[in-house]
Amino acid sequence: MKNENVLLLDGSKVAGEIKDQLQVRVNQLKENGITPCLATILVGDDPSSATYVKMKGNACKRIGMISKRIDLPKETTTQELLDVIVELNNDSSVHGILLQHPVPEQIDERAAFEAISIEKDVDGVTSLGFGQTALGFGEYPSCTPAAILEIIDYYKLPIEGKHAVVIGRSPILGKPVSMLLLNRNATVTTCHSRTQNLPELVKQADIIVAAVGKANFVQGDWVKEGAVILDAGYNEGNVGDVDYEACLPKASAITPVPGGVGPVTISMLLKQTVAAAEKLV
Amino acid sequence: MKNENVLLLDGSKVAGEIKDQLQVRVNQLKENGITPCLATILVGDDPSSATYVKMKGNACKRIGMISKRIDLPKETTTQELLDVIVELNNDSSVHGILLQHPVPEQIDERAAFEAISIEKDVDGVTSLGFGQTALGFGEYPSCTPAAILEIIDYYKLPIEGKHAVVIGRSPILGKPVSMLLLNRNATVTTCHSRTQNLPELVKQADIIVAAVGKANFVQGDWVKEGAVILDAGYNEGNVGDVDYEACLPKASAITPVPGGVGPVTISMLLKQTVAAAEKLV
Repeated sequence: MKNENVLLLDGSKVAGEIKDQLQVRVNQLKENGITPCLATILVGDDPSSATYVKMKGNACKRIGMISKRIDLPKETTTQELLDVIVELNNDSSVHGILLQHPVPEQIDERAAFEAISIEKDVDGVTSLGFGQTALGFGEYPSCTPAAILEIIDYYKLPIEGKHAVVIGRSPILGKPVSMLLLNRNATVTTCHSRTQNLPELVKQADIIVAAVGKANFVQGDWVKEGAVILDAGYNEGNVGDVDYEACLPKASAITPVPGGVGPVTISMLLKQTVAAAEKLV
Repeated sequence: MKNENVLLLDGSKVAGEIKDQLQVRVNQLKENGITPCLATILVGDDPSSATYVKMKGNACKRIGMISKRIDLPKETTTQELLDVIVELNNDSSVHGILLQHPVPEQIDERAAFEAISIEKDVDGVTSLGFGQTALGFGEYPSCTPAAILEIIDYYKLPIEGKHAVVIGRSPILGKPVSMLLLNRNATVTTCHSRTQNLPELVKQADIIVAAVGKANFVQGDWVKEGAVILDAGYNEGNVGDVDYEACLPKASAITPVPGGVGPVTISMLLKQTVAAAEKLV
């Protein structure tokens, strides 16, 4: 099916423009003797985690940032990981720290996230960062929620007074995006695996955020005519959480997968790292 | 109108039982040489704030806790208030700190809240405390949200899978109660002054939390047959945010005002202060 009136929310285009802006800011920082540096920590050898970390590192390098990569063996203990994080917290040449999720199960991931100092929490994983974001003064929200808002704003789609339905409630996606939308004056319904009558709830949404991690989960007949759809999912086979073909005819605007929320998420990570470095000027 | 099948959620009864339990815990602490102490800070001379602080102090004393009251003049600066808070943070005889809201307008209230150390944030006002609560491991949620959950649990009302509609999004009420309900597997819609079609949204609720600060705001015809109503409002003339008489015939359970959420809120403050003191044993 086709929908000639739909607005395709082109994340690659948004990311490209942000990259150009960041390039300028990185050059200015370098003139001041500062090269922004993102440290990425990968524990173990999960192939898709390794791919993500590599993509983030490459994106840093493309705009002249330093990507400091720390690879730890899959047997790493919580204490060993905490030691690495503390070292990075104390390293003044590092401006942002990203611990790639998920970590091997023997590690207390929450403890590791909490150890990242708020000044370097450019990936928005600490509870303090979440709290500041939720209360409206956080500097570095989680990157995927930040990307979703960035795309909405880039295309000047209204948020205030709209009913947003968020499917998912994870600490780095569903919960923070709910709070960001709420702070922008949307009415927000947060749904999850225990939600009853999910299709009925989604059908009320002016803005749908799919953040559930299930391929093609959101069905065409769940979507109200004219809804804006943001698909934050990325599942095996390069598919999102939204059944794109089925939802396209209903939507007024929609992100594709790939090329939607994903590229902008990486942009947000870089942007927040650059912002952290700029505080030192 | 009457409703013989309605369950009256008696906050005074819940508070009474908590008081008895706390009395035992306070006595045990005293045997260990610790008397739990709540410091309350009142800036200025707003009469209703003074009344609240007095009620909280009296509640402490009734169960043998120490209430340390700090009254500051209405001209107090942010820095002066911060100095007082830091002193209380460092005072090992103080286990909990409550800064009575609102403070005079020349003070940066957020900065003052943020200065309270997390170990003594028994009123749940810091962004760190909020973040921990939202992510599911907070020890001291804001007291009114905690009271709402306490009442629901006391009366064994189910939360999981229910649709909760929260009216209000303040940092110490609407937002944290939304998060607490979400963490208990409710589907949560958070509404506010910019929400469109509020009556229609409220009508879907299995659980209604009114936290808007407007007398008799929630109307009878907004309420679905069988809804559970928690009224966290307390407005001039001793009335809540819910039009009680109009909503009573529809509700399966409802809190009165006064005698509903209010008394349990004070109990939560004491309970969390006692818990903070118990960490020293």
